[in-house]
Amino acid sequence: MAKNNDRFVNSIADINDDFTKWYTDVCIKSELCDYGPVKGTIIFRPYGYAIWERIQAEADKRFRAHGVSNAYFPMLIPQAFLMREAEHVEGFAPEVATVTHVGDTELGEKLVLRPTSETIIGNMYSKWIDSYRDLPLKLNQWANVVRWEKTTRPFLRTSEFLWQEGHTAFATPEEANADALEMLGVYKEIANDVLALPVLTGQKSEKEKFAGAVATYGMEAMMKDGKSLQSGTTHYLGDNFAKAFDVKFLDKDGTHKYAYQASWGISTRLIGAIIMAHGDERGLCLPPVVAPIQAVIVPIGAAKNAEVGEKAAEIEAVLDKAGVRVKLDDRDQSPGFKFNHWELRGVPVRIELGARDIAAGAVTVCRRDTGEKSAVPIDSVADGVSKLLIEIAANMFEKARAFTESHIVKVSSLGEMEKALDGGNFCDAYWCEERGCEDEIKNRFAATTRVFHEDQSDAAKHKCVCCGKKAKRRIYFARAY
Amino acid sequence: MAKNNDRFVNSIADINDDFTKWYTDVCIKSELCDYGPVKGTIIFRPYGYAIWERIQAEADKRFRAHGVSNAYFPMLIPQAFLMREAEHVEGFAPEVATVTHVGDTELGEKLVLRPTSETIIGNMYSKWIDSYRDLPLKLNQWANVVRWEKTTRPFLRTSEFLWQEGHTAFATPEEANADALEMLGVYKEIANDVLALPVLTGQKSEKEKFAGAVATYGMEAMMKDGKSLQSGTTHYLGDNFAKAFDVKFLDKDGTHKYAYQASWGISTRLIGAIIMAHGDERGLCLPPVVAPIQAVIVPIGAAKNAEVGEKAAEIEAVLDKAGVRVKLDDRDQSPGFKFNHWELRGVPVRIELGARDIAAGAVTVCRRDTGEKSAVPIDSVADGVSKLLIEIAANMFEKARAFTESHIVKVSSLGEMEKALDGGNFCDAYWCEERGCEDEIKNRFAATTRVFHEDQSDAAKHKCVCCGKKAKRRIYFARAY
Repeated sequence: MAKNNDRFVNSIADINDDFTKWYTDVCIKSELCDYGPVKGTIIFRPYGYAIWERIQAEADKRFRAHGVSNAYFPMLIPQAFLMREAEHVEGFAPEVATVTHVGDTELGEKLVLRPTSETIIGNMYSKWIDSYRDLPLKLNQWANVVRWEKTTRPFLRTSEFLWQEGHTAFATPEEANADALEMLGVYKEIANDVLALPVLTGQKSEKEKFAGAVATYGMEAMMKDGKSLQSGTTHYLGDNFAKAFDVKFLDKDGTHKYAYQASWGISTRLIGAIIMAHGDERGLCLPPVVAPIQAVIVPIGAAKNAEVGEKAAEIEAVLDKAGVRVKLDDRDQSPGFKFNHWELRGVPVRIELGARDIAAGAVTVCRRDTGEKSAVPIDSVADGVSKLLIEIAANMFEKARAFTESHIVKVSSLGEMEKALDGGNFCDAYWCEERGCEDEIKNRFAATTRVFHEDQSDAAKHKCVCCGKKAKRRIYFARAY
Repeated sequence: MAKNNDRFVNSIADINDDFTKWYTDVCIKSELCDYGPVKGTIIFRPYGYAIWERIQAEADKRFRAHGVSNAYFPMLIPQAFLMREAEHVEGFAPEVATVTHVGDTELGEKLVLRPTSETIIGNMYSKWIDSYRDLPLKLNQWANVVRWEKTTRPFLRTSEFLWQEGHTAFATPEEANADALEMLGVYKEIANDVLALPVLTGQKSEKEKFAGAVATYGMEAMMKDGKSLQSGTTHYLGDNFAKAFDVKFLDKDGTHKYAYQASWGISTRLIGAIIMAHGDERGLCLPPVVAPIQAVIVPIGAAKNAEVGEKAAEIEAVLDKAGVRVKLDDRDQSPGFKFNHWELRGVPVRIELGARDIAAGAVTVCRRDTGEKSAVPIDSVADGVSKLLIEIAANMFEKARAFTESHIVKVSSLGEMEKALDGGNFCDAYWCEERGCEDEIKNRFAATTRVFHEDQSDAAKHKCVCCGKKAKRRIYFARAY
């Protein structure tokens, strides 16, 4: 399947010269995805889909540990449902795809393809929840959603994408808000431990919050061009959807009350985050936990020496048995061709094996993250490679963390902000929380508020970066995907 | 979440009296699913979805062993794609849902929600396949599909359903046809070993084949009312879609040739098969391999004796560690209430534990499939329950196999056929293969051809069950879902 791409293996754009083209080159040439026939759609090719499957497995087990069960709700939602929550419909209506016909027959009611499922789930929760005994209710679904966006890019913004959406209901506002915050913590753990991705987490501004939420919390990851990628959000919905869909329960005190809800989601966007946070001039660099292939074995001179091929197969079997996702590349191609092929695809570890290595009793192991080579004794190859994979994950996280930290600039004026943004940085600033200032910064610098800063202790002592009036909160501004 | 259902736990319809109502009662009251707001849609509730997740996991590992990779293709397909294969469009057009608008804007081209993905995958295969080196190409996707059917029933026929669709391409017709047959074998193994479901497998008639296929192979399972449920199909597509989408490759001989394709799918329909093949007057009876809960522990008299609760928790931990999916039901309800609750939900093993059991050093274990009780020493409870689960699976398969075998009747006239069908049997008959006879039997008895018989050795010696002319092949007729 790799036929065309290898000929042009070195033809990905220069990451420093044209980051945008570099990104799409990496997506397509590493065979993560391809463009679909309908505008804004992509095909998740096996290499890209395998990354998503690993993210799913890692997330799913954490959700279960959190008391969440999986379910599946219909994709088709009556258009009228969307109308019931005023902010929600305003936020989503323009990008919602509508089904009007089946065959030649017009439907009695218009149906929309879910852009998110709060409404249909609210409708069912009103049926399933009767008493405080039915709470909390914590469901999640892995599903496709459709949001018709004008500008699309692979993984980052596509007409259809894959995600999970958790929907929880509680007896009190405190529990629902706590759930949104706890799930933000789960997302951060997934970002750090699974994707080797440092993130900033916190509440979003009123302008940036989810349509229909009381509060939205987000995690933001810094890409190598200094832009932010919103990588997951959790929402405290209050009783907004409960009121719209009549989700009430009989409480212990004998009165009927509205339930309080939260919802939270991560999507195939995370694949974009991996690409842009870890990739380099040679292409993808995959975090070991999600890499479909963790180690590739490249035999050197196997055509002239049967022992090389035999030993390579032996090592493949040993690594496979040890739980390493390993591939032996025994194609009839030059080692250099194979090196490029697997570097572009971001395989964390390359194992080179020739007659000299066999004689020395050690393979040459090359790390994708640093390019460093070392010798690993064949007798302990499984142990050596397993440890190296852990080291690579830790190093990738640390590298991205240091990069992020060094690209956050404290700014106290619009001039400083512009300079910082143009230099590929996030801005750490104080803000009056007025929409006017947020809009002005967006209009002038194409930067938006991302999340409020963890540390709000001295916010009241400062002035707004934009209008100079008394600041209310400390927040990150950044250009964002 | 179980609030309403338990009050009416014994109110499922009599399986012998009203099988149809019994089926929907079981679906809804065991909380496998609920009806969605849009006609013909269902919600897969956690208990039902967990069964599907187990089927997915078991099928997925078998597909991988077969050299298949997972991918994901867009749900939205240009309507024009459907038109390219004449039989395909004729078969699917009337039940295809069409997207015409996004927000208030009419789309430039009409899009359909995939009823199946041969067309969009053909479109991509034409891009990805260039040379014989790109073959075979074996992809699978787990996805939702939409087919608007007039009459719908939970799991069996819903407007949207979940399935997997495998799409393979080969250099020769022989390989593609062999793939369709091999995957039929994989499906049979899943039916037998995962669902404890005996099936009849074989080719389908021209009338019953997939729209666009050269040949369709199916597996049919007998439900307890004597009707057949088509439980999986595989298709040899020849070069029909390759011609429609220009899927060509440069062969070793230097000439360009069309690829030959196969496709194959199983769906959430299998949950319906489990219900109707194994269920009984008390409700669901789940095969242990897919049961979300394999063993439920019901403490007896725990309120009066703290040791009972402690021992129950201990046994739960032991079983959990041994890999048994176990649940301790420590709700404040009577044992009888709990027995009904879990019997309705088809949990394979119930473990009763009271002070007397603890004194005797053994728990009382009750099998859902036979109702038999036995004592299992507490010291070896994990081993005892694990072995019992294997025994239950084997017994459920054997019971269903014997039932199926005893409900297949050889018939040589339409009179015999009518009597056999009315008695809840499949008919094993000889047929001239003329469409006229197939139609007549359908019109008169509401029975259809299911699959050709394995043994065709003496077919030519017989006469058609309908017209009495020379028979061509031996085939099963049955009423079907």
